[in-house]
Amino acid sequence: MSRMNKQILLKSRPEGEPTADNFELVETAVPTPGPGQFLVKVIYMSLDPYMRGRMSAAKSYSASAEIGQVMLGGGVGVVEQSNNDQFKAGDYVMCATGWQSYCLSDGAGVMKLDPANAPISTGVGVLGMPGLTAYYGLLKIGEPKPGETVVVAAASGAVGGVVGQIARIKGCRAVGIAGSQDKCAFVVKELGFDACINYKDPDFAAQLAAACPKGIDVYFENVGGKVFETVLPLLNDDARVPLCGLISQYNMTELPKGTNMLPALMRDMLTKRILMKGFIISYHFNLLPEFLKDVGGWIRSGQLKYREDIVEGIENAPEAFMGLLKGENFGKLLVRVADDPTRK
Amino acid sequence: MSRMNKQILLKSRPEGEPTADNFELVETAVPTPGPGQFLVKVIYMSLDPYMRGRMSAAKSYSASAEIGQVMLGGGVGVVEQSNNDQFKAGDYVMCATGWQSYCLSDGAGVMKLDPANAPISTGVGVLGMPGLTAYYGLLKIGEPKPGETVVVAAASGAVGGVVGQIARIKGCRAVGIAGSQDKCAFVVKELGFDACINYKDPDFAAQLAAACPKGIDVYFENVGGKVFETVLPLLNDDARVPLCGLISQYNMTELPKGTNMLPALMRDMLTKRILMKGFIISYHFNLLPEFLKDVGGWIRSGQLKYREDIVEGIENAPEAFMGLLKGENFGKLLVRVADDPTRK
Repeated sequence: MSRMNKQILLKSRPEGEPTADNFELVETAVPTPGPGQFLVKVIYMSLDPYMRGRMSAAKSYSASAEIGQVMLGGGVGVVEQSNNDQFKAGDYVMCATGWQSYCLSDGAGVMKLDPANAPISTGVGVLGMPGLTAYYGLLKIGEPKPGETVVVAAASGAVGGVVGQIARIKGCRAVGIAGSQDKCAFVVKELGFDACINYKDPDFAAQLAAACPKGIDVYFENVGGKVFETVLPLLNDDARVPLCGLISQYNMTELPKGTNMLPALMRDMLTKRILMKGFIISYHFNLLPEFLKDVGGWIRSGQLKYREDIVEGIENAPEAFMGLLKGENFGKLLVRVADDPTRK
Repeated sequence: MSRMNKQILLKSRPEGEPTADNFELVETAVPTPGPGQFLVKVIYMSLDPYMRGRMSAAKSYSASAEIGQVMLGGGVGVVEQSNNDQFKAGDYVMCATGWQSYCLSDGAGVMKLDPANAPISTGVGVLGMPGLTAYYGLLKIGEPKPGETVVVAAASGAVGGVVGQIARIKGCRAVGIAGSQDKCAFVVKELGFDACINYKDPDFAAQLAAACPKGIDVYFENVGGKVFETVLPLLNDDARVPLCGLISQYNMTELPKGTNMLPALMRDMLTKRILMKGFIISYHFNLLPEFLKDVGGWIRSGQLKYREDIVEGIENAPEAFMGLLKGENFGKLLVRVADDPTRK
C-alpha cells in the first residue's frame, strides 16, 4: 500500500467548461499531525457542483482555490493518527478533506460518523451537506403545506432526490425534472415522486404543465437557465423559490444574448407575490441536530431512499467532476479514494 | 353647482403608453343610495401607477377594468346621503370611488377620516395605501437594522418618500433615486434623506455607488428596469428586496431584446443570499392600526413629511395619469374633484 499522498491541484482556472488541463495529479509525502492535529485517511471524496465556483477567481459564496493548491472539497475518512483529545485513531469523520488521499485536521467543522447508524458515505450525501441543503431549503424557505405541489430539478441528484421525498413525506405532490428517461424512471419508481419530466424532451414545457395541474407552489431551484424560465409561468400566487444552486450557469463565461427575461421574472414576482431567497447551507449548521434526527429516522424507516454514483480512484476525479457539470452522474457522485472497511 | 356625475370611462385598452383616446368623459345622473348604501361626493381622487395594470386585460394583481366601465381607483369624499347606520351625512371617508364625482358604497373597505387628525387628502397618501405600502414593505420584508443602507427609487413619490423617512427614523442611511435635480433636492432638503441621485444623469451608476459606500442592505423596488440593474451589483450579502411596483415596465408591450439579465440576478441572489419578495398591500390591511399609530405619530411630531401634487378637475385626470407613468408628478398625485371644505 502506497504511503504517498495523492493530491489533485488546481493547475489553471477554466474558461467555461473545465478541462483535464485545469487539474494536476501529484504525489507528496503523507503529512504528520502537529500538536492538536490528527491525520485522516480519505475513503470517499465528494464531488459537488458548487466546486466549479471555487475554481474561479470571481466572487462566489465559497472561497476560491488558489492556482497550485489542492482542490477544495469535503469527504469521509478514518483517523489514522491523532494528537487531539476529541478524535482517536479509528474514528470515522466527515471533514474538509480536499481532493487528496490524506489530510490534516484540527477538528474544526469535523463531524463524527457512526458506521452502525448509516453507511459512512452518507456523511457527504443524504446525511451530509446535500441532505441538509434539501432539508433547510425546502422546509425553512419553501414551507410546503399538505396538498401543495413541489417541483425540483436535478431530481435524481444528491439534493433533488431528498427534496422530493421530504415533500412527499409532508403530504405534497412531488414533481421532479431530470435529464434522461432512466433518471426519470428512477425518480418515480425508486424515490416515489408523483412524476418526473425529462427536460431534454422537445415538449418539456407541456409535459411539466400537465404534471402540475394545480400549478407550482414551491420550486426548489438548483439549476437555473431554461428550466427556470419554463417553471416561471407555472408558479402559483404566493409561491416560494428557495435558491441553492445554478448548475446550468456555472460554466457561463458571459451573459446570454436574446430576450431579457428579467422583467418577466420581476412582473411575475410582483403580481403573484412570489418569495425567492438564495441560501448557502454553511450558514445553517445550527439545524444539524434536527436534520439528523428527522432524516436519519426517515432513512431507517425506509421512507427516504438515496442512490450513490461511485467512481473508483482519485485520479478519475477530474473527469467525473466534468461529467457532473454536464449531468452525466446518476445519484450522489463520490470518488472512492481507499477501501471502505465498513462496507460488506 | 352641477348635480350631474362626471365619470371617466375606460374607452379602449392601451397598447404601451396610454393615450387620451383610451379614456372617455361622460356625465350621468347622480345615483340614489339603495338600502344599506350611502352616497359619497368625491373630493380627491388618487392617481397611482398600479392603475395601469387595471387598464390591461392581462392577469395582474388587481382586477381589470372592463371597456365602457368607470376607471377603478380610490379617493376621499364626504357622505351626502345615507341609508347605512355606520355612516352619516357629513362623514369624511376613504373608499374605492372610481374616477367619478359621485359614488355609492355599502361600507365595505371604507375607512373613516378625522379632519382634526390630519388633512383628509392624506387618506389616499401618506396615511393611506401608499403609506401602508411603504410601511409594510420596508419594515416587514426589508427589516432594516440601524446602520444599514436603504435605497428607494421614485423617492419623491407617495411611497418612496415614506420609505426613506421611515428608514431614517429606524437609524438607517436613506438614499433616494429620482428623475430630476429638483426632486433630488426636495428629497434631501425637505424629506431628510442622506442622499438622492438623479437616474437620468449619465454617471448615475457611479453616483449611486458613491452614495452607498457600505453597499445596499435593503432595496425597496418600485420601478424595475435599468434602475434595478444598476442597484443589483451594489447589494450586500443578506440584502432584502421588497418588490411592490415596476413602473418602468407597465407600458411594455414585449420583453426587451439584448442581454438576458436573469442569470446575473439569479447568480447574485445565490452568492449573496438575497431575499426578494413581491407583495400587494391589499393583503395586509390587518396592519392598519399599527400603521396609523406609528405613521400618524411621526407626522404629528414632524418626523415624517409629505408633498402633494394636486391637479384641478376630474377632466384633467387622464393627462395627469399619463404624466405619472412618465414621472412628471412631484409628490403624491391627486385630482381635486370638488372643493375641500376642511382645508383653509
